[in-house]
Amino acid sequence: MDEQRTDIASLGEFGLIDHLTRNNETRQAGTHLGVGDDAAVIDSFGKQTVISTDMLVEGIHFDLMYTPLKHLGYKAVAVNLSDICAMFATPTHITVSIGISNRFSVEALDELYEGIYAACERYNVDLVGGDTCSSQKGLIISITAIGEVETGKYVTRSGAQKGDLLCVSGDLGGAYIGLQLLEREKRIFLESPGVQPDLQNKAYTVGRILKPEPRADIVTWLQEKGITPTSMIDVSDGLSSEILHICKQSNKGCVLYEEKIPIHSETKEMALEFNVAPSTCALSGGEDYELLFTIKQEDYEKITISEQISVIGYMTDADEGTILHTKGGNTHKLVAQGWTAFNG
Amino acid sequence: MDEQRTDIASLGEFGLIDHLTRNNETRQAGTHLGVGDDAAVIDSFGKQTVISTDMLVEGIHFDLMYTPLKHLGYKAVAVNLSDICAMFATPTHITVSIGISNRFSVEALDELYEGIYAACERYNVDLVGGDTCSSQKGLIISITAIGEVETGKYVTRSGAQKGDLLCVSGDLGGAYIGLQLLEREKRIFLESPGVQPDLQNKAYTVGRILKPEPRADIVTWLQEKGITPTSMIDVSDGLSSEILHICKQSNKGCVLYEEKIPIHSETKEMALEFNVAPSTCALSGGEDYELLFTIKQEDYEKITISEQISVIGYMTDADEGTILHTKGGNTHKLVAQGWTAFNG
Repeated sequence: MDEQRTDIASLGEFGLIDHLTRNNETRQAGTHLGVGDDAAVIDSFGKQTVISTDMLVEGIHFDLMYTPLKHLGYKAVAVNLSDICAMFATPTHITVSIGISNRFSVEALDELYEGIYAACERYNVDLVGGDTCSSQKGLIISITAIGEVETGKYVTRSGAQKGDLLCVSGDLGGAYIGLQLLEREKRIFLESPGVQPDLQNKAYTVGRILKPEPRADIVTWLQEKGITPTSMIDVSDGLSSEILHICKQSNKGCVLYEEKIPIHSETKEMALEFNVAPSTCALSGGEDYELLFTIKQEDYEKITISEQISVIGYMTDADEGTILHTKGGNTHKLVAQGWTAFNG
Repeated sequence: MDEQRTDIASLGEFGLIDHLTRNNETRQAGTHLGVGDDAAVIDSFGKQTVISTDMLVEGIHFDLMYTPLKHLGYKAVAVNLSDICAMFATPTHITVSIGISNRFSVEALDELYEGIYAACERYNVDLVGGDTCSSQKGLIISITAIGEVETGKYVTRSGAQKGDLLCVSGDLGGAYIGLQLLEREKRIFLESPGVQPDLQNKAYTVGRILKPEPRADIVTWLQEKGITPTSMIDVSDGLSSEILHICKQSNKGCVLYEEKIPIHSETKEMALEFNVAPSTCALSGGEDYELLFTIKQEDYEKITISEQISVIGYMTDADEGTILHTKGGNTHKLVAQGWTAFNG
């Protein structure tokens, strides 16, 4: 059957998606956007429906040794809602399919669903469908999120213009540090099972990895202020990777200032303990689920009102490249070193 | 963590879904129907959007030894579209997430997607999103299908009334026989790898299991004739199981005539070869993906025009029970012996 054999790893995740969808055609006149952005956009007779889907696999995307099931359920929903938010849309519905091996009890699933329902409640979203089945190994969670947006008001990754300001919500790198902390405690536990985990004073970073929040509040705030970003993406794979997505899909270059990247004090402190530059955590770590977006320069004054939004750089012509200005005054080419599920 | 431990198998699939969704609340005013039917129904500003989701796991739902990947891709889509059809809606969009272990090559995935795209083309549906990731073991396919229906025109499982006629499209039991044939050829192959499969003259039943078709044509035909079923479900788990779903959710009883159950000549012939009653294949086999529905008696004349629809019984009050009239003139209580993913 397989006369030619190309390893999936040789394509990488994005390459694989590009490859698999290269011949995809749209047939419905109402389909405005299909594969290739955070979510799809289809006409819904007055408003537009936005759809996004994600699959999480035990051992690949999460480790149940340090992920409480309730948090996992919450996070699985949050990650999908984040994709809807990244379209500048409001999440409204989800469907959840789970595959479970027989080592899970009903009580364990109840915990998982407690988290799922908690996220639905927090974000005013309805769970409207699902499927449960057996898996041969481990837990598999597949969620599809649906949202709505005023017709034509959705924001893609491809609309950034030269001179637009590059902005990010919240702070970055915390989830990466939280993961390092959990991994360290896991190693200690495996070596000396009696030792209690030492996660005191690390609530912020551990919370960032275990219970991320989609930035629906940022979308609402921007909408209320009448600011429509020219491009937007959520930060799931690390800041560099996401900036490069916007540059590539908008066919633009950028200048990013290292000193402008927002990083929480706990993240900074713990990064130094792990002997890694805090900005590296932000640039190459992942799972912060903040929103990265570009705005027109004329919206700069309005943006500064929000303490939750940082301007971290600006867009240039594509031939000016993707530049990182370091704190030390040097310039580097911005490269993606984000997580990928296939190198993971 | 698990002080009480309830085995998932003790609930069964439907029990588990009921259990997990027992506290599910809807918050969006536009949500007309959530969990508990073939698909969800949400308002879409003029029409209604219908959403359904399914997960297929290698070794649980399919065996790659006798399932060509192209057929698998086609079937994975078909099964989801069938759920949309069972709401009396028209499928419009799908999202596809796949988890893959590293034993799959890109060429193998191409085959899978060829089938997915073939089904999209056949049913005029757009693939609008997806996710690919690694799995620890085997292939996992999770598909969400979206469709549309005129506001208020969707058909649930719960609307059957006393006196309504019980109808089914196409014929039943073929997929079950097809599966038995494939399983038999697999055993022979494993014992004597040189022997060529003997599937000549069995194209119909093997086709029924490998390449089922959602009955979008039946939905369109009924809509064109102005017939709105009072209840509807697709036949994925076997006729008895599906009839009992309609009875339970409509709070009705039924009388089913064994002799009226439509069965293809090849199915009959092969059933006898396997020493099983053809009607047992229809009642307890699964995966035929025909539509089972109830209509008002006044629509009887119109229904008889279609050679693709059989009237197989009628609905009664709940206290009259669920009755099967056998060809031999006896009556039995109709019981569900459908496939369930957890009894595997």
